[in-house]
Amino acid sequence: MVATTATLLVSCPEQKGLVAKIANFIYTNNGNIIHADHHTDHQAGLFLSRIEWELDGFRLARDEIADAFNAVATPLQAQWQLHFSDTIPRVAIWVGQQEHCLYDLLWRIQSKQLNANVVCIVSNHKKLEPIAQQFGIEYYYFPVTSDNKREQELKQLELIKSKKVDLVILAKYMQILGADFVRQLPQKIINIHHSFLPAFVGAKPYHQAYRRGVKIIGATAHYVTEELDAGPIIEQDVVRISHRDTVKDLIRKGKDLERIVLARAVRLHLEHRILVYDNKTVVFA
Amino acid sequence: MVATTATLLVSCPEQKGLVAKIANFIYTNNGNIIHADHHTDHQAGLFLSRIEWELDGFRLARDEIADAFNAVATPLQAQWQLHFSDTIPRVAIWVGQQEHCLYDLLWRIQSKQLNANVVCIVSNHKKLEPIAQQFGIEYYYFPVTSDNKREQELKQLELIKSKKVDLVILAKYMQILGADFVRQLPQKIINIHHSFLPAFVGAKPYHQAYRRGVKIIGATAHYVTEELDAGPIIEQDVVRISHRDTVKDLIRKGKDLERIVLARAVRLHLEHRILVYDNKTVVFA
Amino acid sequence: MVATTATLLVSCPEQKGLVAKIANFIYTNNGNIIHADHHTDHQAGLFLSRIEWELDGFRLARDEIADAFNAVATPLQAQWQLHFSDTIPRVAIWVGQQEHCLYDLLWRIQSKQLNANVVCIVSNHKKLEPIAQQFGIEYYYFPVTSDNKREQELKQLELIKSKKVDLVILAKYMQILGADFVRQLPQKIINIHHSFLPAFVGAKPYHQAYRRGVKIIGATAHYVTEELDAGPIIEQDVVRISHRDTVKDLIRKGKDLERIVLARAVRLHLEHRILVYDNKTVVFA
Amino acid sequence: MVATTATLLVSCPEQKGLVAKIANFIYTNNGNIIHADHHTDHQAGLFLSRIEWELDGFRLARDEIADAFNAVATPLQAQWQLHFSDTIPRVAIWVGQQEHCLYDLLWRIQSKQLNANVVCIVSNHKKLEPIAQQFGIEYYYFPVTSDNKREQELKQLELIKSKKVDLVILAKYMQILGADFVRQLPQKIINIHHSFLPAFVGAKPYHQAYRRGVKIIGATAHYVTEELDAGPIIEQDVVRISHRDTVKDLIRKGKDLERIVLARAVRLHLEHRILVYDNKTVVFA
Repeated sequence: MVATTATLLVSCPEQKGLVAKIANFIYTNNGNIIHADHHTDHQAGLFLSRIEWELDGFRLARDEIADAFNAVATPLQAQWQLHFSDTIPRVAIWVGQQEHCLYDLLWRIQSKQLNANVVCIVSNHKKLEPIAQQFGIEYYYFPVTSDNKREQELKQLELIKSKKVDLVILAKYMQILGADFVRQLPQKIINIHHSFLPAFVGAKPYHQAYRRGVKIIGATAHYVTEELDAGPIIEQDVVRISHRDTVKDLIRKGKDLERIVLARAVRLHLEHRILVYDNKTVVFA
Repeated sequence: MVATTATLLVSCPEQKGLVAKIANFIYTNNGNIIHADHHTDHQAGLFLSRIEWELDGFRLARDEIADAFNAVATPLQAQWQLHFSDTIPRVAIWVGQQEHCLYDLLWRIQSKQLNANVVCIVSNHKKLEPIAQQFGIEYYYFPVTSDNKREQELKQLELIKSKKVDLVILAKYMQILGADFVRQLPQKIINIHHSFLPAFVGAKPYHQAYRRGVKIIGATAHYVTEELDAGPIIEQDVVRISHRDTVKDLIRKGKDLERIVLARAVRLHLEHRILVYDNKTVVFA
Repeated sequence: MVATTATLLVSCPEQKGLVAKIANFIYTNNGNIIHADHHTDHQAGLFLSRIEWELDGFRLARDEIADAFNAVATPLQAQWQLHFSDTIPRVAIWVGQQEHCLYDLLWRIQSKQLNANVVCIVSNHKKLEPIAQQFGIEYYYFPVTSDNKREQELKQLELIKSKKVDLVILAKYMQILGADFVRQLPQKIINIHHSFLPAFVGAKPYHQAYRRGVKIIGATAHYVTEELDAGPIIEQDVVRISHRDTVKDLIRKGKDLERIVLARAVRLHLEHRILVYDNKTVVFA
Repeated sequence: MVATTATLLVSCPEQKGLVAKIANFIYTNNGNIIHADHHTDHQAGLFLSRIEWELDGFRLARDEIADAFNAVATPLQAQWQLHFSDTIPRVAIWVGQQEHCLYDLLWRIQSKQLNANVVCIVSNHKKLEPIAQQFGIEYYYFPVTSDNKREQELKQLELIKSKKVDLVILAKYMQILGADFVRQLPQKIINIHHSFLPAFVGAKPYHQAYRRGVKIIGATAHYVTEELDAGPIIEQDVVRISHRDTVKDLIRKGKDLERIVLARAVRLHLEHRILVYDNKTVVFA
């Protein structure tokens, strides 16, 4: 039996006593801390912290915690989030025609390696609908053209709202999202880009990598921002290639990277281990 | 200008309020924490913590800190160490006939990448004495045979005592140290073993690796304990090999691993980032 | 359209003219070589080679090639295999209760990343039968106890024979196969072991790794021989861990390694890129 | 005792019989091949090969080989190079103010890990002259300003000519070489760039990497061409970083990468294992 926990993610201007004040809040309310990690970016003058404690025995009721912590946070000018481990995040997966990342995520969620409910799968193609059926998940087909893109994205935003989606995962969606769409979902869209960013931004990165003759290829999971492939990087990994590898080999090797890097990033997000500042991530692993 | 800091390394039985109590000790004395990291091994029921703060502005004088922290630590049944960043550790390097790790360490120390004073180099061979001269370091030649080993190690212990050595680095010493020697220096001897431990314990690990036909070789830096190559592992790294690689190639590739893995482990030790329990290390990197 | 190719895998005692003689055989018959790689183990006095050429335009008919090459090979005392790329290998997958490797292999085969027909899935548990059904593959349930093991393995050998199985993949089968079984299938059984062999042979390698306090874990795909976890290694890979990782985390991280390392080894085997000698593999990647 | 060998590097348009023709040239002259590797880029229609054989027992005298092979190569429209293993390449090292790569190369050459004679060290700073003296190597000081750059580079070309330099190694030279200089030395200048190219071209790549928030940094060794940091990549490697790493940490971690990646590339070049086409390298490792 895993105990239910609460997690606070806090960021505030650097000052003395921050670890003490946050830890005291937990301790004076009889909380048992099971994870505490802090980071200070001295250049940016910013303190960032993640603290997780068991709810069992904690003197504050769930609905009292936010108000109580606010009293601590306000004088520190802190921004903070509070999460409970038994609130299962609601996830939507955007896909194109490639199934490897979708399959991988669904397997991980089904086997409880990732803690999430997949509330829908969205695509501009019909191709992967059978996988959705196989896992019993609703599949929404939104064919996108340059003409109807805005309109379709508005419908997608509707869907996100109605389904109460916490996180959109772009599992090889292969479409650039409109700025309006992205702005509605800050740090709520994770994309997997099939290159070692910032190398090979944009289309066909494996072809770009092949042409440039690199000896290592990579994949990058990042939060989506308005600028293409330029959002905060959550996770990256690489694999060695050689002159014997064709573009097709790069794609094959890359698929394994994409699956793993995306899954790692999604796990870190779902476990509330990421804080973003200055277009970068702090990952409390 | 880097500010002088104090570092506490603490381990104690798991209980509520530990982060708060340690952080409060710093905060109530007006300390500015620049690094705080904690780990709880729930299975072992053990809490381990590293906390580093600037001495400038701290209300306790250096020589008051230990007593004051003792008052916090005693009720927690904590074991702890206190270090100051301007106390430069005194290091002795044990070598055999291979120079790559020695050169590497001396270069890193000379270029201030590692914060240490090398007080002597010890060897059972005369071969590397010119390197010692080149860097202006005393070189002690202790030829070791099965007959005089004990006696020579007693002399080496004398030397360690007289030179006030804080850390012995076995930079490819290639001799097994006696149990008596090792017992005198708990967590004060770091060895580099040229395999991915626990694979290929003992002599000629590259030959063992070649015979076994592994596809990856490694190197392991660890604290030395009485059992050969079985002490707490500090750092490991690996490199890919292929059937084209002969034993000679393994040795060449391995030397690069050895240098880097040893240097990383030494840096972690010198910066007081390692705690040992249960024959394992916690590395607050 | 990919052209049909023939592949020769050759090993023979080292001597002059080997590359020339093999290449001449292809050239004089008007073959277009698309892959040629050679390796000489000078210590073992052994030459090993892989050569692949397009059948289109080749002057020998398929069924003439073996006899014709035999005339070249016999004076060289060569052992050799001949394979055609349009002969799709028949594969059987042995599983236990864990599905990650099975899913992964089936996905890769379905998406044509691996060139194989899965002719059956065999297990000592019923648990994964639904996955077999989902992919339309026959599932054979052979419950194994210490009493009936020999008998069950005889039945499994029967099945292998009747299904004309070319390769048995142990995709986390978690049972030790009997020596009689193994002897029947030399270099025809690939196993994935969840450690960086030869470290942590046998049961519960992740628990062993956790206890030893290693900083990196691995997975190893190897041909099965009579000695447990001691067969020729085909592929290995590793991932970094830290003191924060529990055994459960090691298992999670390890599963990603297992899937990828097993799939790579299976691909190398299916593409006839592996030669074995002296309990080692030469991998013509 | 290592036997003296000859090595042919050949590239020519793809056609049937290439492996046979090259291997026959060696075999009919009684050569014992110790390394043969080939690559065909079907897209580019190009065949590339490296073949190395023992001179002992070879029927052609050294000075006859080139003419004899020319008779084979001309009908194939092949470009080729012939090298003898006992001709020790003459190397010049260009440095700035950082010593780590210089030290590393000198150590490797001194310990015979790299087969080269260092004929001079060139710098626009006086700082590293003591290292040159320590190793008994001539040091040339060419202070470079925007005004005298052209003139100084002409003097450097003179020096290269008079010293019969085969390879110029830019071991953190930190100056952009003029197009005229570069054009004189095609595939004869190896640079180490402290990023994972093509990411972070140009100045201060570690600062760029820090700002972008990448999770992995790299280093790239490449041949220098007129376009900055865009020449054929020989070798790359990477190391993982985290949010805890400052720019200073990136520089420290990067130095280890730079040393190793540069040394690997230099070794591949000195052993005549690299062929360049289409701004890419084929590495016969």
